[in-house]
Amino acid sequence: MKAVTLDAGGLHFQPSHAEPTTADGEVLVQVLKAGICETDLQLARGYMGFHGIVGHEFVGIAQSGDHAGRRVVGEINCNCRMCPTCLAGRPTHCPHRTVIGIDRHDGAFADDVAIPEHNLHVIPDNVSDDQALFTEPLAAAFEILEQVAIEPGDQIAVLGDGRLGYLSAQVLSLVTDQITVFGKHGVKLLRFGHRGYETVQVPSADPAELPKHKFDVVVDCSGSTTGLPMAIHMVRPRGTVVLKTTVAASHELSLAAIVIDEISVVGSRCGPFDKALDALADGRIDVTGLITDRYPLDQFRRAFDSAASANSFKVVFEIGSAP
Amino acid sequence: MKAVTLDAGGLHFQPSHAEPTTADGEVLVQVLKAGICETDLQLARGYMGFHGIVGHEFVGIAQSGDHAGRRVVGEINCNCRMCPTCLAGRPTHCPHRTVIGIDRHDGAFADDVAIPEHNLHVIPDNVSDDQALFTEPLAAAFEILEQVAIEPGDQIAVLGDGRLGYLSAQVLSLVTDQITVFGKHGVKLLRFGHRGYETVQVPSADPAELPKHKFDVVVDCSGSTTGLPMAIHMVRPRGTVVLKTTVAASHELSLAAIVIDEISVVGSRCGPFDKALDALADGRIDVTGLITDRYPLDQFRRAFDSAASANSFKVVFEIGSAP
Repeated sequence: MKAVTLDAGGLHFQPSHAEPTTADGEVLVQVLKAGICETDLQLARGYMGFHGIVGHEFVGIAQSGDHAGRRVVGEINCNCRMCPTCLAGRPTHCPHRTVIGIDRHDGAFADDVAIPEHNLHVIPDNVSDDQALFTEPLAAAFEILEQVAIEPGDQIAVLGDGRLGYLSAQVLSLVTDQITVFGKHGVKLLRFGHRGYETVQVPSADPAELPKHKFDVVVDCSGSTTGLPMAIHMVRPRGTVVLKTTVAASHELSLAAIVIDEISVVGSRCGPFDKALDALADGRIDVTGLITDRYPLDQFRRAFDSAASANSFKVVFEIGSAP
Repeated sequence: MKAVTLDAGGLHFQPSHAEPTTADGEVLVQVLKAGICETDLQLARGYMGFHGIVGHEFVGIAQSGDHAGRRVVGEINCNCRMCPTCLAGRPTHCPHRTVIGIDRHDGAFADDVAIPEHNLHVIPDNVSDDQALFTEPLAAAFEILEQVAIEPGDQIAVLGDGRLGYLSAQVLSLVTDQITVFGKHGVKLLRFGHRGYETVQVPSADPAELPKHKFDVVVDCSGSTTGLPMAIHMVRPRGTVVLKTTVAASHELSLAAIVIDEISVVGSRCGPFDKALDALADGRIDVTGLITDRYPLDQFRRAFDSAASANSFKVVFEIGSAP
């Protein structure tokens, strides 16, 4: 099969990669489309030292099992379901987990991918393939509401004008209408302005120019080491900073303000797929027009370059078609 | 009056400093004893750029107002009681606040100190001066319970074998008996062992040698930039790290683990004086024998050196005596 793989030498297109083997409890999924996310860009730069087939945001058709023939998306953490962490209700943190396309489990930038059957969610009929492609990052945005009690009227800042910022702003706007988005790219910010969010273009990374102690919650989707100092500056005393993006680089950071202002910094990762699919199905979340670029797998270099550029929003591999 | 002051040139003893003037709502307090804490050591090194009379842990006798003639302790944040932050129930975060002996308000290493009357708490008769001296740091330890929901049986790690670590461990032990204290000083750890806490001496700062993902909550009282990386290493996924000590220096820190493990890092500062005094009065918290060194004000250099050394626990200025 065709696949995009990563090794110490970087990304490669493999025109005839071996078919995935399915472990116990896994089923084969034929991949229709797969999206490139910030984590993929970081993996390609060596983050986590992953080697194998990349890709974890996908829409496909289950080839076997209870959902055979149905359109599915898949949760990315492959957990053991029997260790204390899993049994304590934290399966996404299973210490034995592998992660699809990220950690010791081949991913979805390929014709087929092996996925644990219990990770699969059937896509509602009224959700298109293009919409369903956003299930995984949208679930990650919904995780914010699982972790932080946000009240109507709360002042929220979203840092970052990219994909995760856009989905997070929409999820947060289900609770409060006081949302301000800070980003570096005027063109990307337009998309937020059209939804009615206040937008602030931040040309410099100097936190002193930003509003101090203004927001109840600041959600850092900046994908940059400059995000957290900005967030600490802008959140009110006893407010909450939600860290959404994993930045591989070290921060040089003064933490005194976290103590003095009694700020909570909450790391936030994968979220509930069911809530994301529900919100896509009932139209509460709108992902229309977010896919700006589409490539076949063998144009992976252009696709990754495009995903890293300020001009594109969501870049997608068009891989297979329904039978 | 006698006073220990701080300016750009460091600490000084003033044998005949001017008496404090009381602002609106303030009363004069005759200081009996005052303790040196970690913050004072940092102030002396230039943290916060404070100039004036140092000292914020004190026991004294109110000279006027409703509590005239009574033994009192005083909260250290002098807030305006009328801004949105105060009215929202966060007076310790009032943006207009001054802080006694820390920020634009003269402190208690002096014969007399001016304190807002509403900051004062009368000391219960069965609490000695020596015990009451621990009200402020003990209140800061009780703040942990105000911020984090700790359950009986939760596994707690306390980092740091100093004063705040000792009080924090005792407060936490009111809720759970699973407490492990990590410290660098064998002698100081003995004090914790005598109370029945598990203790671990950490000779090196290499986090890899420490238990990974073991604790539900890790409380960093280390006063060191090495504390937070250790805490992030030891806390379980979705666990909480409480940052108690303000470290002026910058951290070089990788934050990826906070996101991947969905850790909450909660800054924690001043706490409820009433709960601290209650716990001292009813014997739930034991501060017997913690004062290892006593000095008059004019021996401030020996006192500060002593407070910074590993051999002392709590260093106190003996300043006045009750009439």
